[in-house]
Amino acid sequence: MKATARYVACCDLGGTKALVGLVDETGRMLARERYLLPGQREPGQLVAELASRLTQLVRQAGLTWSQVIGLGCSIAAVLDAERRLIQFAPNLIGSAQNVPFKDLLQQALGRPVWLEMDAQVTALGEAWQGAGAGAGELVYVVVGTGIGAGLLIQGQIYRGWSGTAGEFGHTTLDPRGPRCNCGNTGCLEALASGPAIAQQAQLALDQGRTSLIRELQPPLTAEMVMQAARLGDPLAGEIIQQTAEYLGTALANLLNLLNPEVIVLGGGVIQGGADLLLEPIRQTAMRRCGSWIDWRKTRIVAATLGEDAGLLGAARLVWMTSPN
Amino acid sequence: MKATARYVACCDLGGTKALVGLVDETGRMLARERYLLPGQREPGQLVAELASRLTQLVRQAGLTWSQVIGLGCSIAAVLDAERRLIQFAPNLIGSAQNVPFKDLLQQALGRPVWLEMDAQVTALGEAWQGAGAGAGELVYVVVGTGIGAGLLIQGQIYRGWSGTAGEFGHTTLDPRGPRCNCGNTGCLEALASGPAIAQQAQLALDQGRTSLIRELQPPLTAEMVMQAARLGDPLAGEIIQQTAEYLGTALANLLNLLNPEVIVLGGGVIQGGADLLLEPIRQTAMRRCGSWIDWRKTRIVAATLGEDAGLLGAARLVWMTSPN
Repeated sequence: MKATARYVACCDLGGTKALVGLVDETGRMLARERYLLPGQREPGQLVAELASRLTQLVRQAGLTWSQVIGLGCSIAAVLDAERRLIQFAPNLIGSAQNVPFKDLLQQALGRPVWLEMDAQVTALGEAWQGAGAGAGELVYVVVGTGIGAGLLIQGQIYRGWSGTAGEFGHTTLDPRGPRCNCGNTGCLEALASGPAIAQQAQLALDQGRTSLIRELQPPLTAEMVMQAARLGDPLAGEIIQQTAEYLGTALANLLNLLNPEVIVLGGGVIQGGADLLLEPIRQTAMRRCGSWIDWRKTRIVAATLGEDAGLLGAARLVWMTSPN
Repeated sequence: MKATARYVACCDLGGTKALVGLVDETGRMLARERYLLPGQREPGQLVAELASRLTQLVRQAGLTWSQVIGLGCSIAAVLDAERRLIQFAPNLIGSAQNVPFKDLLQQALGRPVWLEMDAQVTALGEAWQGAGAGAGELVYVVVGTGIGAGLLIQGQIYRGWSGTAGEFGHTTLDPRGPRCNCGNTGCLEALASGPAIAQQAQLALDQGRTSLIRELQPPLTAEMVMQAARLGDPLAGEIIQQTAEYLGTALANLLNLLNPEVIVLGGGVIQGGADLLLEPIRQTAMRRCGSWIDWRKTRIVAATLGEDAGLLGAARLVWMTSPN
């Protein structure tokens, strides 16, 4: 007689909120919950709350932990190469370093844990159930408050040598460009992230440009600039066009170097502005790729899983290494 | 009784010359020959000459083809994803396309053939016997007439989805930069290749700058600019410093995205100017990497195998998949 159906638990720990879920082998989400993570906390406290939320979810689904293979966990943090320790997660746990997060979770749950950085997990989710379904060579690019990437090679997460691959937001796109939070100048993140869009609009207003945006209540956001662009505001239109140009050029660099099958774009700026950004990004990327080779077949698409990409990717982490 | 020792044949077909060799499992080169490839020829003629040179080499080494596992071949060409067809190799075979080069070679030799693009083979050679010995995550960057890269991931060549990965020379580094042969503007190759170095010097002379270079017999070359820089010529020094800045910035982008263990630099510009370029390249790359993660451990080194890197890499192609 075949063993009873088995499930995996998954969680997605962001800067300000957490999602927990239960997912089967086909990607079906049996249960799902969202809770807020306001402010920083002790790592032990984070683990205890997560374990309690997960245990409640398992119980509500009519299951016991013995029917759950393990937990896949996506986290907004820099991890060590072996994915056991948190090196850097200021929004979640403040200045604590070398936190043995995977071990703490395993002890609290009594089940094995898979821990990965968020962009990489999202890439896995979109390659499993989303915009890149079935692709082996996939790059997921998140454009939001920051810009980052998760790389899949032959369907597996590519972490790099010491585990830090994917810092796409800090590639220099214009050596003479504006200063970035990282200390350098002209990083993609300083040119095309949500805050960069708002900052360019503010700068233009300060210089006396007329625009619909001037009538809005500060502080300016990228969302306001996109709204004004939709209403035909010339300044907002220029800024959005320039943003697409930066993103498209950076994607052309990716296409030239890595030749992926799919580039999936996600994050707040894309979710809020795909109608304005996606086509100009594609056009710039294709124009900037060498024309003598057929890179043009690579698809550049918007993410389709939204908030669930992290949960599904985290579940996939477990299923990939644990055949049922 | 153990079977007799076995060998692999290897060749490196460049734009103007060919190298052929015999290499054992430890990387020892038993025999080696170099011959010129002046002008374009029919694919069949290229294959026939190569087969004849290789057969002669095997015979001179006191071997027969039955003692040779197969041929590893490095080629200055764009290949299809399966590495059977030449898509583009203007210097070798003119405008011929979809040439079944691997099959032609196999038929001519009666032995299996492994065919790969040159930058990728060189990466393999340097990771086996050269500057990156033992590294799993390695990027080889060639800076010469053009700029390109070969990527190794877990010790294996990374070809990308459709086989064109590594077009590092056509990453945009300055959207407002000079025009590149590929049709775009501000590609790394248009800023920091050998011809770009010479062109910058010529431009400065045309604008009336004083420089030692003015006394030299035209046409200008990168080698002349480097020679003048060594003699303390201010214009030449500026151009070399700027070249290092471009290359270092592009390498920082690589480090941020791919986090390799080693970056190996080769090609004519590096071979001729490592004393001038290597340290400023390293400094720029490290300055432009995000400081909050320890990318600084990645080594940036000059290639050490010189002309043999292609032969050794081609031999390694065979040994990797054919355990003795």
